[in-house]
Amino acid sequence: MTPYQQLEARFARRGTLNEALSVLNWDYSSMMPAGGAQARAEQMSTLEVMAHEILTAAELPDLLDQAQGQNELSDWQRANLKEMRRDWLHATAVPASLVETLSKASVECEMAWRDARPANDFAGILPKLRTVLELTREVAAAKAAKLDKPLYDALLDAYEPDGSAAEIDRQFAALSAFLPAAITAAIERQQSRPAPIQPQGPFPIERQKLVGLKFMAALGFDFDHGRLDVSAHPFCGGTPDDVRITTRYREDDFARAMMGVLHETGHALYERGLPADWRRQPVGRARGMSLHESQSLLMEMQACRSREFLEFAAPLLSDTFGGSGPAWDADNLYRLNTRVSRSLIRVDADEATYPAHVILRYRLERAMIEDRLQLADLPGAWNDGMRELVGIAPPDDRDGCLQDIHWYCGLWGYFPTYTLGAMTAAQLFQAATAQDASIRPGLAKGDFAPLLGWLRRNVHGRASSVPAAELLTDATGKPLDAEAFQRHLQTRYLSE
Amino acid sequence: MTPYQQLEARFARRGTLNEALSVLNWDYSSMMPAGGAQARAEQMSTLEVMAHEILTAAELPDLLDQAQGQNELSDWQRANLKEMRRDWLHATAVPASLVETLSKASVECEMAWRDARPANDFAGILPKLRTVLELTREVAAAKAAKLDKPLYDALLDAYEPDGSAAEIDRQFAALSAFLPAAITAAIERQQSRPAPIQPQGPFPIERQKLVGLKFMAALGFDFDHGRLDVSAHPFCGGTPDDVRITTRYREDDFARAMMGVLHETGHALYERGLPADWRRQPVGRARGMSLHESQSLLMEMQACRSREFLEFAAPLLSDTFGGSGPAWDADNLYRLNTRVSRSLIRVDADEATYPAHVILRYRLERAMIEDRLQLADLPGAWNDGMRELVGIAPPDDRDGCLQDIHWYCGLWGYFPTYTLGAMTAAQLFQAATAQDASIRPGLAKGDFAPLLGWLRRNVHGRASSVPAAELLTDATGKPLDAEAFQRHLQTRYLSE
Repeated sequence: MTPYQQLEARFARRGTLNEALSVLNWDYSSMMPAGGAQARAEQMSTLEVMAHEILTAAELPDLLDQAQGQNELSDWQRANLKEMRRDWLHATAVPASLVETLSKASVECEMAWRDARPANDFAGILPKLRTVLELTREVAAAKAAKLDKPLYDALLDAYEPDGSAAEIDRQFAALSAFLPAAITAAIERQQSRPAPIQPQGPFPIERQKLVGLKFMAALGFDFDHGRLDVSAHPFCGGTPDDVRITTRYREDDFARAMMGVLHETGHALYERGLPADWRRQPVGRARGMSLHESQSLLMEMQACRSREFLEFAAPLLSDTFGGSGPAWDADNLYRLNTRVSRSLIRVDADEATYPAHVILRYRLERAMIEDRLQLADLPGAWNDGMRELVGIAPPDDRDGCLQDIHWYCGLWGYFPTYTLGAMTAAQLFQAATAQDASIRPGLAKGDFAPLLGWLRRNVHGRASSVPAAELLTDATGKPLDAEAFQRHLQTRYLSE
Repeated sequence: MTPYQQLEARFARRGTLNEALSVLNWDYSSMMPAGGAQARAEQMSTLEVMAHEILTAAELPDLLDQAQGQNELSDWQRANLKEMRRDWLHATAVPASLVETLSKASVECEMAWRDARPANDFAGILPKLRTVLELTREVAAAKAAKLDKPLYDALLDAYEPDGSAAEIDRQFAALSAFLPAAITAAIERQQSRPAPIQPQGPFPIERQKLVGLKFMAALGFDFDHGRLDVSAHPFCGGTPDDVRITTRYREDDFARAMMGVLHETGHALYERGLPADWRRQPVGRARGMSLHESQSLLMEMQACRSREFLEFAAPLLSDTFGGSGPAWDADNLYRLNTRVSRSLIRVDADEATYPAHVILRYRLERAMIEDRLQLADLPGAWNDGMRELVGIAPPDDRDGCLQDIHWYCGLWGYFPTYTLGAMTAAQLFQAATAQDASIRPGLAKGDFAPLLGWLRRNVHGRASSVPAAELLTDATGKPLDAEAFQRHLQTRYLSE
């Protein structure tokens, strides 16, 4: 076997372990009884250690160097090699003892956060969060040295390969230039019109599930290769050949679960569309979290909150729930599902205000990683930022800097991908609909085949064979540009 | 770390991989969409290979020898070491290439069997079955040499540690001495009385599931550490901390799913009762398949087809299904659930005729392994044996030697454990009820705590710390003896 082939065999084994981990995690979240938690943690930790050992094997650096010198490699093989090296750098940059210490500190802090948030007790959790932050800064320093990147970029690279704070600054500056005025204008425009009517429940869960399954089928979800289940925190898991999405239901509101299912279906279609020839190889994976989020937001925000889709959805919804009257009109549903309002909680935010929440978190986490903001000053900085960016401030930390799990469970450098994803979604959707005139009329008939075909060719099927920026340029004619997102808001909230 | 400690660490990892495999297998059988099969096969095969590599590591024989010389080991540690050596012997006795060839041949033959059985085509599948048999004989020869056992015993040892054909011959000879007459007498006695009345369905599946869950709770199933789901072939899987049992439902018959659930609950209680201190170590595992089957049959056959339990069950069943009239009387349900009849199919057989089916299979498979019976003669030998042992013969191979999956999927040396389990169950139940007078009255109230407590102390908690024969002697005062099973049949079918 050539060095490259040896690497492929090793990474195939690692990819297979990661698939097994993904199934175990799905089961943990959607099926497992509580008493199984400790044994499951041992199972997952053992598989993670074994996957990690493959990357830290003594022969790996030599194999990577030797494979680099092989002349006969295809473009995909070269790209695969590049991703192998990235994985290896991330795995070996940080001493195993530091990884373990941070992992334990994160679990402990996350557990404490589950009580601290409802108790509104930021002071109480501060010592544990400080430990997590300090260890994360150590990890960032170690990765920065090995990856030759600034501190924040070194963390970001694990979620957004080749991303940089400099680029995010540029994008978020462009966003910030129009977002506050756009939000104000959208809210004023809404207030000048009659409020939309909320359909009245209860909406039986079995009916909601039926709606979810129908829409999943319309979007192109392949039930021979996936499932829909329930979990406390909706997610898309499983593997490309067996994609497992979850949602949660509330009897008094069907829109939340419905939009959640459409969102996760976007993620699922990406996973399912990854090239079968590169299963379990690094190059066969999705191209980072921004692009992943772009696929869920393209389906949820761009396609399924459109007038076209809601025209298709309205009769199906009123039939399924036995609803009648103006609340079930497509126009009313459209106005309900495109409502803009300033809110304290990120996960409840609409697509117009959501980026403001993200910009705040990005600024704060970067300042903390770069030691320009002390943890004790976080609540004040949070509230100041909320006033500036969203226009309101929380009455307490529960709905302020305690609201998101990310920092408390050790997830630093992840937040900006949400908004980069939203911007990417707008740009991809505008390019797709411009290139294929059958896409928008398709949505009105529940026919997503033209849209999905375009995404398969331009996004899903390319996996990690090129950087995200190159993929976006190939698909849309230019690199990421806030103008597409601005146009989307303008059209949906200020023109239609 | 001492050599013993090093072994514990290695076997802990292997045990953890096996737990992960068990969860993946449960998901495969009860949740996975069909399109996930190929990826799942890769995941499971990778984990199996990695678990196997732990056993075949070059350092293992030395570690085993060195640990053997450690003087400070406890009885459980010594027993653990003995099971480690058994696992190592089984894993290293057979060349990897032979294991792989047999594994592939078995998969291929099993696939062909799925078509050959409905097509009644024994001649068509014979070449594939011959390959499996020949490879199995090679495996048996390799294991026999390394384990220093006769051919058949070497296969049996993987399912029934320390079991032997000589002992099975002795037990089955004792059984055969009374079984044919007992079966005839039971059938004649039944025929002399009015036939029991079959409750009329349909029995909605949700109601059947409710019944299953209620009975599981009564038996002591801990739902914080387990679940009940549906699969095509009912089984007990998962791990001791998260036991997953399955059943399948038919709307026209509730008894089958109900008895299936009670059976699997017996397996589940055994797994759940294994000692937590020895999780994922060889000594912490259940003590072989006979003892495992004894736990399911003790619950299903001994406890739950008793008059006492059916008195408890009858009102619960008629309430749940809205039934009324004589069909729902405890006495009628008892007579329905203790019906004896000569049947062609093992899995449909009652507890009195079941051993006859097993003795036939044991005789035939042993003769084939020992090259005393040629495959071409199997259908004839099957039909002759059925006439002799069960008193009827199948009209074709579909309901004859094609009926069971075992041989076609490479499972040789397993069959006798079903009947050894039934005999063990009778002996354990008689000892338990003799030692604790509250067990039988408990069944009539749905209170299984006294019975479960006895099993926890005498069976479950001992795991693999002693041989099955020693465990049974400690619990019942003597080694396995067909007399207990004979007394059970006598009492239930010829006296009550």
